[in-house]
Amino acid sequence: MRVIIDLKEMQKYSKAAKGQKIGLVPTMGYLHAGHLSLVEAARKSSDRVVVSIFVNPIQFGPKEDFKKYPRDLKRDKKLLKPYRPDVIFIPKVEEIFPNGFSTFIEVKDLSDKLCGKIRPGHFKGVTTIVLKLFEIVQPDLAFFGEKDFQQQVIIKKMVKDLNLPVKIVALPTVREEDGLALSSRNTYLKPKERQAAPVLYKSLLLAEEMVNCGEKNSQKIMQEMRKLIGSEPLIKIDYISICDPETFKEVKAVKGKTLVALAAYVGKARLIDNLLLTGK
Amino acid sequence: MRVIIDLKEMQKYSKAAKGQKIGLVPTMGYLHAGHLSLVEAARKSSDRVVVSIFVNPIQFGPKEDFKKYPRDLKRDKKLLKPYRPDVIFIPKVEEIFPNGFSTFIEVKDLSDKLCGKIRPGHFKGVTTIVLKLFEIVQPDLAFFGEKDFQQQVIIKKMVKDLNLPVKIVALPTVREEDGLALSSRNTYLKPKERQAAPVLYKSLLLAEEMVNCGEKNSQKIMQEMRKLIGSEPLIKIDYISICDPETFKEVKAVKGKTLVALAAYVGKARLIDNLLLTGK
Repeated sequence: MRVIIDLKEMQKYSKAAKGQKIGLVPTMGYLHAGHLSLVEAARKSSDRVVVSIFVNPIQFGPKEDFKKYPRDLKRDKKLLKPYRPDVIFIPKVEEIFPNGFSTFIEVKDLSDKLCGKIRPGHFKGVTTIVLKLFEIVQPDLAFFGEKDFQQQVIIKKMVKDLNLPVKIVALPTVREEDGLALSSRNTYLKPKERQAAPVLYKSLLLAEEMVNCGEKNSQKIMQEMRKLIGSEPLIKIDYISICDPETFKEVKAVKGKTLVALAAYVGKARLIDNLLLTGK
Repeated sequence: MRVIIDLKEMQKYSKAAKGQKIGLVPTMGYLHAGHLSLVEAARKSSDRVVVSIFVNPIQFGPKEDFKKYPRDLKRDKKLLKPYRPDVIFIPKVEEIFPNGFSTFIEVKDLSDKLCGKIRPGHFKGVTTIVLKLFEIVQPDLAFFGEKDFQQQVIIKKMVKDLNLPVKIVALPTVREEDGLALSSRNTYLKPKERQAAPVLYKSLLLAEEMVNCGEKNSQKIMQEMRKLIGSEPLIKIDYISICDPETFKEVKAVKGKTLVALAAYVGKARLIDNLLLTGK
């Protein structure tokens, strides 16, 4: 498990490994079982596994939690060890975004919906760092979690539009036993908030159940979801959306593959979750 | 001299050539000696030379000359033959920009100055196609002409900011005997316009001479340039700028390396030219 900090060294490592399959798992650190499931999948399908740890400043808004985002490299390394990545790539902010940095990648249309509506510039920050990581690490495969559903769709679109020679693998959300989606931000939750938080996933399951019982009307489904989440006074809904899983355009009726996605504040933590529904 | 149309085939070719140095000369076709000097340089420094020919729709404004831009593949192939490129890559517009294409690369700050001020979106179109070509052709070296000075600076900035594993080589403008910079758009010129056009380069040489004689004042230099160009009634100046060659910020006084750049309409042709000055 080699630690690489320097960008040129990382690029050199990957160049020397050409011909072998490189799998990249880009993370912001403070790893949980969701990340580790990505590393496990990368290990199975790649000759060389690179896990990047980089809290990306340009995907945070000015009032968001960049500074207090949890960081613990020692803990991350310990967690990664059993999964035997070849490289942990931990670049420095000032090398990734030196003074005068001014080039951005933007996936139009998809980036201003759902979370992008509330977090303007967020996905531009994501696509820019992901492209940079691809250029530095030169992976054949890159692994992302479906908890960040919009993110992986946008990254797949970027890869397609820009002809990037990398395959994106998206893996299912990993959850706590009570259904709460794993997130580094769950550490922000106070005990009572942690107790309340699983209602988010429960509301997604409720939507699924309604659809399975024949309900098609998005408004009705969202109304029931809001009612359920509303039973927890510690939670403030940011948005709920029932939409096309490729365009994120809201749909009036659930027909075929449909995404239900939500974001909510639980105390100071802004949590997201989603579920893919199959309308009849 | 293999012709490749298909993007996947091009990507495959380059993947198979890994370990060898690939040199890319991106062009919009209707080649002239300027392009050919780039191919010659690529041939000298690369194991495999790829010349791309693609008239890029997204770098033209809605009222610009995309449709009537000169195209003649037969002529291009004939001109290229003596320079022995390995591949002529001629992708189709509908494969490079399929329906729903929506991802763009933008180099902020640099793209809205000089030509970018008059042609909004132009450089976003340039950086987007160049990145795509880099991803498809996977070159180690890419060759650009200094006639498009702003373009090569912006591309170098993109390469630096995004950690692209390619080296940009910029080569001097090739000129007609009377000084007119070679351009595919020179074919638009009617005989009298062609006769008038060299005054653009003469005005750059006048600027250089004034600087060599100790003149520092940008306004005074530009005034004399305007006067000289004004002697040709067939020419309408679009802009003249004396600026920093890295930031394109206008400078009041010519000190050290300074760019003098201009664009002008000669009949229907919008021509550009520039010269690097060295103030004392």
